[in-house]
Amino acid sequence: TIVDFVQQKWAQQTGRLRHRHVLVTAGGTRERIDPVRFISNDSSGKMGYAIATAAANEGADVTLVSSTTTLSAPAGVEIVHVAGAKEMLNQMQHRFAQQDAVIMAAAVADFRPVEEATQKIKKTADNDTMTIKLTKNPDILKTLATQKTKQVMVGFAAETEHLLANAQQKLTDKKLDMLVANDVSRKDIGFNADNNQVIILRPNQEPEKLPIMTKSELAAELVDRVVTLLPGK
Amino acid sequence: TIVDFVQQKWAQQTGRLRHRHVLVTAGGTRERIDPVRFISNDSSGKMGYAIATAAANEGADVTLVSSTTTLSAPAGVEIVHVAGAKEMLNQMQHRFAQQDAVIMAAAVADFRPVEEATQKIKKTADNDTMTIKLTKNPDILKTLATQKTKQVMVGFAAETEHLLANAQQKLTDKKLDMLVANDVSRKDIGFNADNNQVIILRPNQEPEKLPIMTKSELAAELVDRVVTLLPGK
Repeated sequence: TIVDFVQQKWAQQTGRLRHRHVLVTAGGTRERIDPVRFISNDSSGKMGYAIATAAANEGADVTLVSSTTTLSAPAGVEIVHVAGAKEMLNQMQHRFAQQDAVIMAAAVADFRPVEEATQKIKKTADNDTMTIKLTKNPDILKTLATQKTKQVMVGFAAETEHLLANAQQKLTDKKLDMLVANDVSRKDIGFNADNNQVIILRPNQEPEKLPIMTKSELAAELVDRVVTLLPGK
Repeated sequence: TIVDFVQQKWAQQTGRLRHRHVLVTAGGTRERIDPVRFISNDSSGKMGYAIATAAANEGADVTLVSSTTTLSAPAGVEIVHVAGAKEMLNQMQHRFAQQDAVIMAAAVADFRPVEEATQKIKKTADNDTMTIKLTKNPDILKTLATQKTKQVMVGFAAETEHLLANAQQKLTDKKLDMLVANDVSRKDIGFNADNNQVIILRPNQEPEKLPIMTKSELAAELVDRVVTLLPGK
């Protein structure tokens, strides 16, 4: 719309992320078993899309690498559709060097099938059971961390138990600048809900627990904190 | 809308399926691995939703058992959300007796994980691989066939190779009155596309190949054929 267009032009002049490149990922990756089946997870992509929108509202050049296809692309954001984790990493790697911040809101599958069948695996009378062998996916944030120059790296931790301990471990392990932890065992927040409540972890800082808010409101809060982490700010 | 409402009232007076109960299924079932992960397939649910709409347009009392949550419920259709195949069968079984036709457009997973973990399975340093043991899901149409009294039973076959042979086998094996076969290896039709092209199989009849058309048009064609199969027509 014209309103979006004017807002965007204004943000490009005045936003706190003008001339900055921000890479955002969204959605649950789909790891193929065969041409019709896959392993995935409950991430709807809503959080990542909200963050991409919030970053664009601050004037950033945003690239959204998305493994969901049910949400429409935010205005003024470049969108790259991917399926599995390997493809997501690949698309991120050759865009990484010019980024100022990488916000990894996608729920990347930890494992993928060792083999992807080229034809649909048929159910037959003699196969009452089936075994799928999985292998670990590349750790995208860890892989990118080895190529890091200036990028502010933000990760997410979706946990169903031991939230803070697991999140703290992830922050350290992946050498992140910020980690957003949320408890996905609660139905009112997290995956596919419109609201979210998170705890923000940063190195050498006390965890910051935010109140429950909409995903758009939370996206603005997160982008606000990314701004303060950027060099030269 | 008022137009929908008037159209629906009109259909209830004049439609060829008035006073008939039709059960339609839609979407790819989600078979849980743990609270955040599942195995699913590419079925978008569009075909099933289109069929539910077409049956309602003919004045039927339609129940739509759906394993997708991204489409909005057609006007005047009762919708029942389910996740996995076992839950789908369960919801269908206690509605089966009063149905006149069952149209199984859902893509039911052939297999589900033997165990569903109650907490998110964590990736650890020492689990580079993982194995998921799967067991066969109940065959919904075969199970319902044993309880069949008057119901017209319609199935779908989504295949990537040997389309006609696999479909013919399914028609016989599941004792169906009609089977709708489509080649999901083609990107322009089938899963998630807006168009579809199918071959209709019925016992003791030559396969009928329909031209390519939108899923709504196809839904009307299929409902038209279901009408002719109903006893007393």
